[in-house]
Amino acid sequence: MSRVERKRAEARGRILAATERLAMEKSLDQITIQDITDAADVGHGSFYLHFKTKFDVLVPIVRQRAEAMDDRYQELTAEIDDPAEVMAISARLMSREIIKDPLWCWFLEHSGMPLEQMRRAFGRFSQRDLDKGLATGRFTVKDLETTIQFGFGGFINLLMVSLNQDAVESVIDDAVELLLTVLGIDRKEAAVLAHGELPVY
Amino acid sequence: MSRVERKRAEARGRILAATERLAMEKSLDQITIQDITDAADVGHGSFYLHFKTKFDVLVPIVRQRAEAMDDRYQELTAEIDDPAEVMAISARLMSREIIKDPLWCWFLEHSGMPLEQMRRAFGRFSQRDLDKGLATGRFTVKDLETTIQFGFGGFINLLMVSLNQDAVESVIDDAVELLLTVLGIDRKEAAVLAHGELPVY
Repeated sequence: MSRVERKRAEARGRILAATERLAMEKSLDQITIQDITDAADVGHGSFYLHFKTKFDVLVPIVRQRAEAMDDRYQELTAEIDDPAEVMAISARLMSREIIKDPLWCWFLEHSGMPLEQMRRAFGRFSQRDLDKGLATGRFTVKDLETTIQFGFGGFINLLMVSLNQDAVESVIDDAVELLLTVLGIDRKEAAVLAHGELPVY
Repeated sequence: MSRVERKRAEARGRILAATERLAMEKSLDQITIQDITDAADVGHGSFYLHFKTKFDVLVPIVRQRAEAMDDRYQELTAEIDDPAEVMAISARLMSREIIKDPLWCWFLEHSGMPLEQMRRAFGRFSQRDLDKGLATGRFTVKDLETTIQFGFGGFINLLMVSLNQDAVESVIDDAVELLLTVLGIDRKEAAVLAHGELPVY
């Protein structure tokens, strides 16, 4: 990495860190790009070299958070052999964390259609178990990409409309049940998997 | 209706008609609110009395189109008793019309999350058959609102990411198959219903 590249990477890192720091103090709505560049001690030009909008800054931040969660759930479910069970637990836990994270919520609320950027933000979520479930025939799908876009769009839309509802955790579990159904799990079994007791961690 | 109310309703109607007319000539992206008010012969104030944005003008337009389509499909399927079959045909035909309608496509592309406004735009789509399917037990859902938000979000996201693909009609049919599955139709039957020959009209 050249000196210029290193400087650029450092500036990008400072922008991300400053945004996370500012977001702990106030809502993203109240934070301007000027606030971010001031806090990161970088120029406006440097900001626009890496990002187009405030929303763009969030993509790597929420993605990093999603991947950290996924790592934790992988560890937590290491003893569980059934990929459907692991996926159900991961999706239920991650959704519960997301709805409590103001930064993730802001990101959700400002994502447009199609959900490509949001899908990137979720990163490798449950990839290992999706692959395993497909390889072993536990999951059966006609076209994988179609199933993912359908299940993902359905899940996110449901999460979005339920964000401020009292019963959001029960909606999450119902959404996980439908997600498993779309992946080919029998409906009755999907209901059991999506509503069992969650591991404590 | 008072004289003032009548004048307002007329202005609103002219705004809608002018927008539809302009949209036949060029892309919505190139049409400004000024273009619309000029073509409708109304003032700026009159526009903002009824609508906040260009997007808002589209809601009643696409809704009216969706309802006109729905009426046609109801007539076309009047002899078919199975609500699942009617819904499959309606969703497949409507999606095929939507992807060919520049106005609907622009509306889809500019809808954010959650999809509340888009859901309103779809209006009463297949409501009769949804009700009938639920009443007769042909459809089985745990929570209707959850199922609708999930199915709708999944369907729209899939449609969005496939808009410019060559195989979009086959993606539509796969999406309808998943939609029927979410409504509790057996997977094998859903596959048959979503891929049969479409009525000619």
